[in-house]
Amino acid sequence: MTAATIDVVGIGNAIVDVIAHSDDAFLAQQGLNKGGMALVDTARAEALYAVMGPGIEASGGSAGNTMAGIASLGGTGAYIGKVRNDELGDVFRHDMTAIGVRFTTAPAMSGPPTARCLILVTPDAQRTMNTFLGACVDLGPEDVDAELIAAAQVTYLEGYLFDPPRAKEAFRKAAKLAHDAGRRVSLSLSDPFCVGRYRAEFRDLVANHVDVLFANESEICSLYETDFDAALAQVRGHCDIAALTRSEKGSVVVTRDHTHVIDAARVDKVVDTTGAGDLYASGFLFGLTHGHDLPTCGKLGSLCAAEAINHFGARPETPLKTLAAKAGLL
Amino acid sequence: MTAATIDVVGIGNAIVDVIAHSDDAFLAQQGLNKGGMALVDTARAEALYAVMGPGIEASGGSAGNTMAGIASLGGTGAYIGKVRNDELGDVFRHDMTAIGVRFTTAPAMSGPPTARCLILVTPDAQRTMNTFLGACVDLGPEDVDAELIAAAQVTYLEGYLFDPPRAKEAFRKAAKLAHDAGRRVSLSLSDPFCVGRYRAEFRDLVANHVDVLFANESEICSLYETDFDAALAQVRGHCDIAALTRSEKGSVVVTRDHTHVIDAARVDKVVDTTGAGDLYASGFLFGLTHGHDLPTCGKLGSLCAAEAINHFGARPETPLKTLAAKAGLL
Repeated sequence: MTAATIDVVGIGNAIVDVIAHSDDAFLAQQGLNKGGMALVDTARAEALYAVMGPGIEASGGSAGNTMAGIASLGGTGAYIGKVRNDELGDVFRHDMTAIGVRFTTAPAMSGPPTARCLILVTPDAQRTMNTFLGACVDLGPEDVDAELIAAAQVTYLEGYLFDPPRAKEAFRKAAKLAHDAGRRVSLSLSDPFCVGRYRAEFRDLVANHVDVLFANESEICSLYETDFDAALAQVRGHCDIAALTRSEKGSVVVTRDHTHVIDAARVDKVVDTTGAGDLYASGFLFGLTHGHDLPTCGKLGSLCAAEAINHFGARPETPLKTLAAKAGLL
Repeated sequence: MTAATIDVVGIGNAIVDVIAHSDDAFLAQQGLNKGGMALVDTARAEALYAVMGPGIEASGGSAGNTMAGIASLGGTGAYIGKVRNDELGDVFRHDMTAIGVRFTTAPAMSGPPTARCLILVTPDAQRTMNTFLGACVDLGPEDVDAELIAAAQVTYLEGYLFDPPRAKEAFRKAAKLAHDAGRRVSLSLSDPFCVGRYRAEFRDLVANHVDVLFANESEICSLYETDFDAALAQVRGHCDIAALTRSEKGSVVVTRDHTHVIDAARVDKVVDTTGAGDLYASGFLFGLTHGHDLPTCGKLGSLCAAEAINHFGARPETPLKTLAAKAGLL
C-alpha cells in the first residue's frame, strides 16, 4: 500500500444553500417538519421560494461542508459531486476549489440545474431544510475516480447520497475501491428521516462496510429503532469507530473496547445550527488522519461544530486551523 | 397632486454581491484600490473570481439595499433595475419582492448575465468592490414607469447609474417625471471615483435637479474638489437637504438655513462596512417620508447604517422597524 497523498475524499450531493430567517408560524403554515430535511420537486421548490423571505446563497451540501472544514483546518481534501454547468454550479465549484479542495467531477451539461437547499432558520437557531436535488441525480459510478479514492486515507460518504437514484452505486463503488486500496470508509447518517427511508441498507452498510460512523442521537436511534444507550451498544459491535453527537451535550466516541465522552465546545451565541454535524465530522476526520487520539478527534469535532453554529451558513467563517491552535488541540 | 401611495421608488444597478474575506496583501497583489468600487469586464471578473476566496452571495446594489432597508423599517417601496432571466436574476428579484418591494422591471432576455459585484472584506471591515455590470447595461428610459414615479413621494437615484450607457437617460427621465408630479428627487453620489468620472454632470444635477442629496465625506469633497467645510458650504446653496455621512463621526444634515450634527449609532463590532451608506439613506428617507424632523431622519440613518455594518453583507439581518422602535425613534 502506497502512502496516502490526500487526507479525505468526500462524496456527496453538491448543493447551494439558500438561507433565510423564518418563524415557527411559517413552518406550520407550509407544513414543514422543523429540524428535518425534506426533498422537494421543482414545483414545490419554486412555490416555497416564492413565499419565503429574502436569503443569502452559500455553497453547502453535507460532505461539501465537511471538506471545506477539513481544508480550513489545513488538511488536504478532494470532493466528488455533481453540479450543472450553470451559475450556481460555478459558485459551488469556485467555493470548493478556492479553499483548496480538489473538485474535478465533470458538470452535467444538460438536465436539471444545480441543486439548491431552501433553509429556513427559526429564532431558536434550528434549521429546516428543503432540498431540490437538481443535477445531483446525474451522479453515478462513472464519476468515482479510482485513483483519487486510493490516494485518500478516508473516503467519506454522506447518507443523503441514497436519495438520488444512481448516487448509491457511486457510493458503493467508492467504498469498495477504498477498502481494496486498504483505506478507511466513513459514513454520516445525515438525517433521521433519511435513515428511515433506507434503514435496511444503512444497517447493512454499518455492519459490513463502514469503519468510521457519524450520527447524531436521533439518527442512531432511528437506525436501530431503539433508545440511545441500546443503539450505542449495537453500533459498538459494528464499526471500528462511531462518533455520536448530542448537540449541547457534546459527543460520545465509541470503539469496540472504549467509550470517550466529549464535551461540547462553548458557543457565545447559537445563530444557525446548519452544518454543525458536517463540521463535527471535519474536525474528527482531520484529527484521525493526522494521528491524534480519539478524545482529541472528538474535541476537534466539537470545536469545528461550535464555529459553524455561531454564524449564518454552514461553512467556516474563521480559519479553523487558527481556532484549533488557540484551543491547544493542534 | 394626488396623495402618494409609495414612500420611495429606487432606481439602480441590480447586482448580486459575492462577498469574501480577503487581506491587504491580496488587494495589493491584485492592484485593487481599497475601499473603492472598480468596474470590471467579463475577463477581469472571471480572473478575479478564480483567485479570490470562497464567498457568499447576497442581493445588493446600492439603491436595492436602500429599498430593502426602507421595507425593513415598514415603509412602502418600489424598485427599477435590470437583471437577466437567469439564476442570479431570479435571486435578486426574489429578495426584493420577498421583503415587499415592488419590482416589475422586465428582465433582459438576452445579452450579458445578471450583474455581480465581487466584494473583498479585509480584517478592518473595509470593503473593496469590483462590479461587473452585466445586464445593467440594458436599463433604459423605457424601463421607467411614469405612474410609479408619480405615485412615490421620493424618487431615489444612485450615482452608479451613470456607468451603464443608457441608464442615465432613465435617471434623467425619472427625475423629470418626479418633479412634474410635484415629488422630490434624491441622489446618492455613490463613490468618490464615480463622482470623478462624471463630476460636471453631477454638479449640474445637484445644482438644478436634486432635492435631497446623500454623500459621504470623500464624495462631497470630490464633487467640489475641495475640503469638507468648503464642500458643505457649497452644497447648502444647491439642495434643499444634504445628508453628509462621516463614518464613525456620524453625519451632518444641511439645509439652506440649518445644520444638524448627528452622532453615529453605537456598533458592538464592525464586521463589514458594505451597505453602510445605502442603509443610512434608508433610515433618512423613511423618516423624511413619514413626517419626522431632520435630526430624527439623521438618527434613523445612523441606526440603519449601524445594523448594516455589524454583519457580513449589506442588507438588514434584524428587522429595522424593531430596532428603531427600541431606540425610541419610531
